[in-house]
Amino acid sequence: MADSTRYVLQENQIPTSWYNVVADLPTPPPPPLNPGTKMPIGPEDLAPLFPMAIIQQEVSAQRHIDIPGEVLDIYKLWRPTPLYRAHRLEAALDLPKNVRIFYKYEGTSPAGSHKPNTAVPQAYYAKQEGVTRLATETGAGQWGSALSFAGALFGIDVKVYMVKISFSQKPYRRALMETWGAQCVASPSNETNAGRAILAADPDSNGSLGIAISEAVEDAATREDTKYALGSVLNHVLLHQTVIGQEAIAQMAMADAYPDVVIGCTGGGSNFAGISFPFVPEKLNGKNIRIIAVEPAACPSLTKGVYAYDFGDTAGMTPLMKMHTLGSAFMPASIHAGGLRYHGMAPLVSLMHDQGIIEAQAVKQRDAFAAAIQFARTEGILPAPEPTHAIKVAIDEALKAKEAGEEKTILFNLCGHGNFDLVAYDRYISGQMEDYEHPQSEIAMALAGLPSVAE
Amino acid sequence: MADSTRYVLQENQIPTSWYNVVADLPTPPPPPLNPGTKMPIGPEDLAPLFPMAIIQQEVSAQRHIDIPGEVLDIYKLWRPTPLYRAHRLEAALDLPKNVRIFYKYEGTSPAGSHKPNTAVPQAYYAKQEGVTRLATETGAGQWGSALSFAGALFGIDVKVYMVKISFSQKPYRRALMETWGAQCVASPSNETNAGRAILAADPDSNGSLGIAISEAVEDAATREDTKYALGSVLNHVLLHQTVIGQEAIAQMAMADAYPDVVIGCTGGGSNFAGISFPFVPEKLNGKNIRIIAVEPAACPSLTKGVYAYDFGDTAGMTPLMKMHTLGSAFMPASIHAGGLRYHGMAPLVSLMHDQGIIEAQAVKQRDAFAAAIQFARTEGILPAPEPTHAIKVAIDEALKAKEAGEEKTILFNLCGHGNFDLVAYDRYISGQMEDYEHPQSEIAMALAGLPSVAE
Repeated sequence: MADSTRYVLQENQIPTSWYNVVADLPTPPPPPLNPGTKMPIGPEDLAPLFPMAIIQQEVSAQRHIDIPGEVLDIYKLWRPTPLYRAHRLEAALDLPKNVRIFYKYEGTSPAGSHKPNTAVPQAYYAKQEGVTRLATETGAGQWGSALSFAGALFGIDVKVYMVKISFSQKPYRRALMETWGAQCVASPSNETNAGRAILAADPDSNGSLGIAISEAVEDAATREDTKYALGSVLNHVLLHQTVIGQEAIAQMAMADAYPDVVIGCTGGGSNFAGISFPFVPEKLNGKNIRIIAVEPAACPSLTKGVYAYDFGDTAGMTPLMKMHTLGSAFMPASIHAGGLRYHGMAPLVSLMHDQGIIEAQAVKQRDAFAAAIQFARTEGILPAPEPTHAIKVAIDEALKAKEAGEEKTILFNLCGHGNFDLVAYDRYISGQMEDYEHPQSEIAMALAGLPSVAE
Repeated sequence: MADSTRYVLQENQIPTSWYNVVADLPTPPPPPLNPGTKMPIGPEDLAPLFPMAIIQQEVSAQRHIDIPGEVLDIYKLWRPTPLYRAHRLEAALDLPKNVRIFYKYEGTSPAGSHKPNTAVPQAYYAKQEGVTRLATETGAGQWGSALSFAGALFGIDVKVYMVKISFSQKPYRRALMETWGAQCVASPSNETNAGRAILAADPDSNGSLGIAISEAVEDAATREDTKYALGSVLNHVLLHQTVIGQEAIAQMAMADAYPDVVIGCTGGGSNFAGISFPFVPEKLNGKNIRIIAVEPAACPSLTKGVYAYDFGDTAGMTPLMKMHTLGSAFMPASIHAGGLRYHGMAPLVSLMHDQGIIEAQAVKQRDAFAAAIQFARTEGILPAPEPTHAIKVAIDEALKAKEAGEEKTILFNLCGHGNFDLVAYDRYISGQMEDYEHPQSEIAMALAGLPSVAE
């Protein structure tokens, strides 16, 4: 078993609880604040938007939170996901025997990414509390697809506000959501006040994630039967993703291995948290593990942003969260890794960066795709644009270890497949893909608009 | 284990040999004939096109043929594939406990279907014999993608002639092949005599599978460094797919189950053979197993064709094979299940139908998609258009057993995912999908052109 290609667990080895890193952090996370009073918000402030069980998880400091049986039953449709030893990539890089690369693969879920890990429990808790309809936003479509899938299994109606430019450019994503029975509209829509206001000002608006969030939040806040669901950033979302890292630990043990470096790409932070948080207790116990968050150079919230209170959305409707941010007015360039185009970073990931538990690197999109092509031609799997960033750093770390003559075991999260992203590969192969880096002045301007909070 | 959702094997449980059904059939398969002399062809006739190891497998009557270690190493990237118990579909159909549905899922391969099961050994044997380049044709793109993937892993150049209409309509399929390093051109191309002749007669030709085969065969026959690879129909292709059924038998045993009915969709016949042939020895030993081939009503070679010698391609360049055929001049309607649009049927499948070992049913495309939508909303996975036909019959068989109060265990092959086929789902959901059935007169006209062979 120690030298397998794919380390496979049985369904009775799916973790039965989620791991809550808050229990082990040196200091508790700073609370979200009411944007008006600047006072910490309480569960009651979130009640119009989220099921109470979700709100309890959002503020919980309990180390392990049981996964409900009905959620486990659905996880069994694709979990445990495989852990791979990248034998063929290692050979292509001509690595010595003591430099090894492993990857966890989340692309085997029906929606093709890690997102169903949280979509399913979010739909489950909503159902438990009598909610019959969920509203959400989606950019490129990964999250909207995952929630549509989860809604289908629980018989919950799902309404997805999809950023109009993506809605037009990616009709197959909409078709996927509709196949699972969801309703998907282009945002801005004329179904909400927020959408109508935007359309009145600019009938040709292409939309943005910020606008779509405003529409979904308004939808949920104004309908008795409806709650809101978010696919990243918040504590409970990161919590649900920890099944990834917990399985990876068991699978690394099958390979008689333990990682020296754990790598995940970061947009809102959820897949990175999923693979890495379960390794944090060992690290805090003194084990020498580096945990690297990889973000796009075009949206460098951890490497070029500040750690401050900011809004979660562009329109300034959400509570203030203390996080690494480029400013909620920052508009990231149109890179293909749509899932990493977020001005902020999960508060928990931001806090752990501030505490030195994790480190961060930024990668340019063309370098990421070059790594993805090498990966696809050796390991076979076509990566989604987001995890190409993690692949690039995994390869870099392996080559550095080879040059230094160091023993090194590297683990990264391949959080989804790229079957819906072939336009991006086509652009890269045909030499049309561009790199973006925002000038520091642009970031400074967005940061100048941060809300003032006395700390 | 008996009541799991997903039955998972370890990599040391991948079958180590392919199963050759020829060894167990009551009569040997009729030989392919030279279209000029009408005499049986020998291995030397195929040598310009295929590696010798492949030719030997094509004519072999040996029951078990060892899978080379290098092929097994690559199979480990996605094999063994999971077997599912369709708990959620069963619940939606309100089935009694003694009516059970299982499905084998081949969509977890990097190319998303069962096609790599044969693409990998075909590339392996070519490499072994010093071949540095493979030529093939592809319609919708599944086979071209699989061979591109296999070529990448063995460092073999792959040239794919893709039917022009698909080349234009599905640029993402081309991008997928190019990501794996293959070269993909629209057919008819100006790179072959066959292509140039077509273009001279009709510069706007949309191409056809027949034309693309002619181009790929000419390419391989006229270049020293190049062999031809085919993705279905031939004996060796069906042989390679038997890993599917062999694994399924082991996985059904984990579930304490054995199928009463085994179902696969059929175009050329390879995924059907893969799931069903390993069950044939038990059936021939008297076990009561029904084996059902499901074909599209728009291309009903088994249910409305004749069992006769015919050409494998439209242009009449191949040897004559005895098979169920609608006539090589038959042009099937443009259904979304592009992989099932073939005028003939694998000679082995045809022979077994003639011998009463298997039975056949035809399904209309809208009925197939209705079943697929129900499947996606219960089991999660989005099926490719081809296996929607198998799903439809699996559901029908389950409901019939329920009505009759019979105990029944049903197994079908879900041979690929539909991530690249969302246009078809979109058409179905929006009510724009059409059903096609060719009038009997049209089939009769194509059959009138069958070559005359004295038997």
